[in-house]
Amino acid sequence: MRITALAGGVGGARFLRGLIAAAPAAEITVIGNVGDDMTMHGLRICPDLDTVMYTLGGGIHEGQGWGRAGETFGVADELKAYGVGPDWFTLGDKDIATHLVRTRMLGAGYPLSAVTEALCTRWELPVRLLPATDERVETHVVVDDADAPGGRRAVHFQEYWVKMHAPDAHAIVSVGVEDAKPAPGVLEAIGEADVIVLPPSNPVVSVGTILAIPGLRQAVADAAAPVVGLSPIVGGGPVRGMADKVLAAVGVEVSAAAVARHYGADLLDGWLVDADADSAAVAQVEAAGIACRAVPLLMSSPEATRAMAQAALDLAAELAGPAAGPEA
Amino acid sequence: MRITALAGGVGGARFLRGLIAAAPAAEITVIGNVGDDMTMHGLRICPDLDTVMYTLGGGIHEGQGWGRAGETFGVADELKAYGVGPDWFTLGDKDIATHLVRTRMLGAGYPLSAVTEALCTRWELPVRLLPATDERVETHVVVDDADAPGGRRAVHFQEYWVKMHAPDAHAIVSVGVEDAKPAPGVLEAIGEADVIVLPPSNPVVSVGTILAIPGLRQAVADAAAPVVGLSPIVGGGPVRGMADKVLAAVGVEVSAAAVARHYGADLLDGWLVDADADSAAVAQVEAAGIACRAVPLLMSSPEATRAMAQAALDLAAELAGPAAGPEA
Repeated sequence: MRITALAGGVGGARFLRGLIAAAPAAEITVIGNVGDDMTMHGLRICPDLDTVMYTLGGGIHEGQGWGRAGETFGVADELKAYGVGPDWFTLGDKDIATHLVRTRMLGAGYPLSAVTEALCTRWELPVRLLPATDERVETHVVVDDADAPGGRRAVHFQEYWVKMHAPDAHAIVSVGVEDAKPAPGVLEAIGEADVIVLPPSNPVVSVGTILAIPGLRQAVADAAAPVVGLSPIVGGGPVRGMADKVLAAVGVEVSAAAVARHYGADLLDGWLVDADADSAAVAQVEAAGIACRAVPLLMSSPEATRAMAQAALDLAAELAGPAAGPEA
Repeated sequence: MRITALAGGVGGARFLRGLIAAAPAAEITVIGNVGDDMTMHGLRICPDLDTVMYTLGGGIHEGQGWGRAGETFGVADELKAYGVGPDWFTLGDKDIATHLVRTRMLGAGYPLSAVTEALCTRWELPVRLLPATDERVETHVVVDDADAPGGRRAVHFQEYWVKMHAPDAHAIVSVGVEDAKPAPGVLEAIGEADVIVLPPSNPVVSVGTILAIPGLRQAVADAAAPVVGLSPIVGGGPVRGMADKVLAAVGVEVSAAAVARHYGADLLDGWLVDADADSAAVAQVEAAGIACRAVPLLMSSPEATRAMAQAALDLAAELAGPAAGPEA
């Protein structure tokens, strides 16, 4: 079975662990978000790709869900002593090694997809990790700023989230997305998949940014495989992160049903909402032409996460029809 | 009093401490060697400038004489895990911060002299540290290599010294030196000095590389100030480092007197040799037209080092004539 998943950072990476546990024999391709990428201290940083890589490669800091286990901050402390760089973003030493290798390879002319493959070799990932695009696509967020002309300014997503802690936002802009193309292998992974999964990642700045790459959303919508997503909104709020703020910024209600409608029936075949909090959403989602099931959607343990992934695969099998079922 | 010193790495930096102790009120300008500089992992590394900076700024690893005290190796361990980079050169985390700041500033278009000044600001150096040149001048060493065409090849000085441990060498090449110019402030520091000191640094790959920059040797030779050097050779061998090998490569005998003659009477006004090992060299050096004194030349303690610097200043005062003496 070939599974293709479109993933953001922490939530997506955790879900992917459950997906691997649910389908250990599957060939899984992960299309990762690059909209959070940035350059700092001259180092190219890909937070979502690295979170997936570290999580699935066994190097993640389990407690915080991002960054490296056993991380040290020798470089960062010295950069502070030099008075260099922003004080709201701290790079760990182990993490810097990843960025040094990436920056050097990009500088040598390798595309991000080749760099990502090279980095993942060391981690012996049980999935194939592809950046959504080799081009630079940076998510910027328009926020209030009384000192700016017009009273608003656009900030890089990392500044919005890490420095500003996600204030109210007016718009989300994918800088460079018009000129981006899906990275090598991305369209093939979508076209050849038996199942396409949208993990409970941020529907705007993670999965939304992936889908915004020209040709990518259409490829998912046109794919032969069933497309099943899991709601990142449970009980009217995000399980983690700032999905509520960025959904509001794009005019989408913060609810499990509204996110399904935002993705759209042309894209989504199936949708999972939380059984405890959002059973009432099932009928609304189905009314929009999307098959919907209510199951527990909190990744509170590896087993709970595996069960979520299994529910997504089960719904996909159901949607694929009898040919894919055990009775065929 | 204005003192200008031409310095290499570990030995030069240690001597400079003694010089500061001997002349605490002097304005000291250090012209640093850049021939050992290299780029590794995309980071621009200036070993001699950094050794001077860390030593005089209080950040040096006292035991080894180079690198940072309390250094950690989180980045290097990870780079090894990625299988990236040479295994014979290990960058510490604190040190990497210096290189990140430098690389970023160079990338932004600042010359090395401005970068060095910016880095030194944090260290509150008691001297002004200038790179000898803002251009890239890299010392390469021609060594035997049975597999190379002609049986020889040229390697970067760092590879020669750190990786190969200084085998016999056939030639020393300063790559890029023809196109180099003295960095801003260098010629002024030489021309306006009251004393010019050549510390017991390597006369070929440290002081020699500085003097090889077009216009620089002539400026020292033409300077009004007395030029006094300290022999890096004691008892027929280098106190530390590989001066014996690189002197042989340029056809200079490994002796205190031969190094003085190598610098030349047009450049040197005074020379200090070791009292225990090389008293017999005094007559030879003076026969070459260079004033010479025998004093203890082992930097075995801060006080011994201060006394060496004081002996150099005393000889300079003597050479400057009565006008500079206490009886004037």
